Amino acid sequence: MDCLFCKIASGEIPARLVYEDDAMVAFADLHPQAPVHLLLIPRRHIETLNALTAADDALIGALLRRASLLAHAEGLADRGYRTVVNSKADAGQTVFHLHVHLLGGRALGWPPG
Amino acid sequence: MDCLFCKIASGEIPARLVYEDDAMVAFADLHPQAPVHLLLIPRRHIETLNALTAADDALIGALLRRASLLAHAEGLADRGYRTVVNSKADAGQTVFHLHVHLLGGRALGWPPG
Repeated sequence: MDCLFCKIASGEIPARLVYEDDAMVAFADLHPQAPVHLLLIPRRHIETLNALTAADDALIGALLRRASLLAHAEGLADRGYRTVVNSKADAGQTVFHLHVHLLGGRALGWPPG
Repeated sequence: MDCLFCKIASGEIPARLVYEDDAMVAFADLHPQAPVHLLLIPRRHIETLNALTAADDALIGALLRRASLLAHAEGLADRGYRTVVNSKADAGQTVFHLHVHLLGGRALGWPPG
């Protein structure tokens, strides 16, 4: 599997993880778009939201909940933060391993892209 | 509970729902930012991602999975779509009932706001 995020999750490519457990890892985006810009990924390779089944619901919910806990840890719980999931070309998805962007630390405009 | 989205979920305020089940409803955003711009909300009042507990994981995962199924129904599965959750002021959250924005039908820029 030649997937950048699988290699980060497995440790084959070193990255400074800000969170990890059996199901997911989180690390800083290499091209941050806000003072805080983290990515949260499931360890298991899932290409896009298109591939989800009901069996994945708890995992994906845990990923969003973990984003909020990391936002807390970054001091963003009160001022706010945005979570974004891009699926395929129109959304600009570049790594085809499902990931949640967590952005905060500045006022985020609307529309969201 | 004086919550706009609770009233939409309960039917007290009429809205043209594009999806509903026991746990969630979906409807068009009143101020669309893309050719397709839907909102998905849990029927239960949850203010923000900050309020989530592990017991909510399956619900939140189901909400994201439903967003992808609605994207399919709108013909966006292949070209792509973006899902966004705003939490509190810096993200521009205006209705304090957790909701997932589903946007698609055009190329979405980066950064996402």
